[in-house]
Amino acid sequence: MIRELIEKNRTYRRFYQDIEVTCETLKDLVDLARLSSTGGNLQALKYIISQTPEINNRIFKTLKWAGYFKDWDGPQEGEQPSAYVVVLHDQRISKGFFWDHGIAVQSILLGAVEKGLGGCQFNSIDRVALAQELDLPNHFAILTVIALGKPKEVVVIDKLGESGDIKYWRDQQGIHHVPKRALEDIIINL
Amino acid sequence: MIRELIEKNRTYRRFYQDIEVTCETLKDLVDLARLSSTGGNLQALKYIISQTPEINNRIFKTLKWAGYFKDWDGPQEGEQPSAYVVVLHDQRISKGFFWDHGIAVQSILLGAVEKGLGGCQFNSIDRVALAQELDLPNHFAILTVIALGKPKEVVVIDKLGESGDIKYWRDQQGIHHVPKRALEDIIINL
Repeated sequence: MIRELIEKNRTYRRFYQDIEVTCETLKDLVDLARLSSTGGNLQALKYIISQTPEINNRIFKTLKWAGYFKDWDGPQEGEQPSAYVVVLHDQRISKGFFWDHGIAVQSILLGAVEKGLGGCQFNSIDRVALAQELDLPNHFAILTVIALGKPKEVVVIDKLGESGDIKYWRDQQGIHHVPKRALEDIIINL
Repeated sequence: MIRELIEKNRTYRRFYQDIEVTCETLKDLVDLARLSSTGGNLQALKYIISQTPEINNRIFKTLKWAGYFKDWDGPQEGEQPSAYVVVLHDQRISKGFFWDHGIAVQSILLGAVEKGLGGCQFNSIDRVALAQELDLPNHFAILTVIALGKPKEVVVIDKLGESGDIKYWRDQQGIHHVPKRALEDIIINL
């Protein structure tokens, strides 16, 4: 069952923008991150949730989409995310945060998939611009942004080809292909 | 449902050591990590699985348990983990690995919980010693170790007290308490 959720939890970049994600839903998702493990139990991550067109737009324009697609700047109006979770490090609490952001994001995205949603996690963020847009106090560092919505695209996992090229690609039907290494290639035998 | 798994996925440090975790189970768990998201789809993480007493012992002695327990050095013989997954960064593939280790560990541990197991993730590792014990080539960096087994302790989540002390503690009945911040304290309102 968790396997089914993980398989469905692909990176989605086009959404039914008119399908709302409620504040309540976003709080439920952040609660999953709250209940997840954090290094030294420090709980130094904080979250901003957004689901209004105005704040969504402010976040959207600071994101860089799909690094491997040189001729695609991101989803057009109508296919943009309906909501966001911005993951912050509260530097008043700790210097570091281990792998907490990965754990938190995985909990949030698995929860989203279970609710029929999907998302995309960003590292390519204009963090200076986003901090300004959100009027963030200096003690917060932006770790990642999760875009959320009802997915409007099909994403499939392919076996990695012999070339070893891991770049994802989109076919003529608009299906998004993600080549994955085989299990036997990621387990190291002693 | 994912919430139930996340709630059950606590950090366990004492196990029924005689209950075996099979190679097949460990491979299933690593497969969950394989199918999970990885930054830029680079898939630079590799895994070593262990479930024999001999290799388990080699790993066990390089781990430092429960930083907040000054008078407890880790589980005694009979309560030690039955298995391990060592998460490596294959530096031939990439320089960095984003938050991939957090995502991978969360997938593995949620899968373990679904199978009636539980685990503990380590950062306090004598990495030099472990690399020697496992005879690791230089291009692998040890990111984290996940200890796995059938949990032999009860872990509960408490509301964070007014002192704000996030240290976990063990009561006289041996129940492990983990104080968690409230949802309203981790969501930042704009």
